[in-house]
Amino acid sequence: MRSVGFLSQCKVGRIIIMASEVQANNGVNVEALLAAKEALTNAPEAAQFKWRAACEWKDGTHSHSTVESFYGLGQDQHRKTTFAFDADHPEVFASLDQGATPVEYVLVGLASCLTAGIAAVAQNRNIQLKSVKATIEGDMDIAGILGIDSDVRNGFSGITVKSTSTPTPSPRTSRLSSLSRRSGRRSMTLSPIRRTSRSW
Amino acid sequence: MRSVGFLSQCKVGRIIIMASEVQANNGVNVEALLAAKEALTNAPEAAQFKWRAACEWKDGTHSHSTVESFYGLGQDQHRKTTFAFDADHPEVFASLDQGATPVEYVLVGLASCLTAGIAAVAQNRNIQLKSVKATIEGDMDIAGILGIDSDVRNGFSGITVKSTSTPTPSPRTSRLSSLSRRSGRRSMTLSPIRRTSRSW
Repeated sequence: MRSVGFLSQCKVGRIIIMASEVQANNGVNVEALLAAKEALTNAPEAAQFKWRAACEWKDGTHSHSTVESFYGLGQDQHRKTTFAFDADHPEVFASLDQGATPVEYVLVGLASCLTAGIAAVAQNRNIQLKSVKATIEGDMDIAGILGIDSDVRNGFSGITVKSTSTPTPSPRTSRLSSLSRRSGRRSMTLSPIRRTSRSW
Repeated sequence: MRSVGFLSQCKVGRIIIMASEVQANNGVNVEALLAAKEALTNAPEAAQFKWRAACEWKDGTHSHSTVESFYGLGQDQHRKTTFAFDADHPEVFASLDQGATPVEYVLVGLASCLTAGIAAVAQNRNIQLKSVKATIEGDMDIAGILGIDSDVRNGFSGITVKSTSTPTPSPRTSRLSSLSRRSGRRSMTLSPIRRTSRSW
């Protein structure tokens, strides 16, 4: 697979989508998003966002991070909730496994971005979703981070999203299968990936 | 800033490290890691890891992800705990803010990776850490994801980790300031970034 930046090729994988032909209501306010698109076209400075996280070391490889405010639409934005996360390394790394690994947090970000994108694109195309499920897997040679081989990249060598289509392909298959590809093209976390799309 | 893959230049920022010169015990089992390095040098196949996440769409832009097993050291590895995460978009995106955004999950991964790396490098250099704190900020022009401008990258245009040194710089400053740079060079999430290091 050809490596592009941080993430290399993504083979679309196990994304299970069940859909039916009814007036779509996937919970995505597409009208508001289209209105925002129009407004921000004339106010590009308002489209400049800054996303933030704060991290505090606890012990060993265990750290605690929080996410609350971000900057966008010309000002700091504050949430009602502070989201908190613990990260750590697993026991096979001689750590205490008190949280997911940093690289797994990246995979969570990617999977959730693709999934939200599918919902948004489906809504925009009036496709009613019943369910969307994805599994994502990132390959890594830890010889790099252990300092065994300086030629080994310290990061993913490949990411695979495994896909399966449900229900059995129908005349709608082409509309369903394009959802994940469209989501990937607009994904804020997937953009540097060159994908080998698979029909489903 | 020059863009390299998914993440562009990172200016080392607000990393506050308090340290003292005692026999270091930062909770990182460096001896085990060095033993693993030696063992895996002779068994490169065991260094091939696969990290995983599973994601399920809930409603709108809200999804729920889980992290449990991964593959490494020649077999599937299972944890005692399944880590669960909710992701969503914020209210300014006409969503319900039921979780951090996907891009914030990526920042959490990056910040926690750098922090764990600092602890590991400090332990290896017999530097006793008292605290490590970091703030990380990712710049993003959402004109890309909204489809306003196809030339705008769908991702971060830059990432800044803000740093401040504490205590006041001393003859040990050079040792402390190199911790974050060393952590960045080995970071599994930061590797493609070209960084402008700042002394502190």
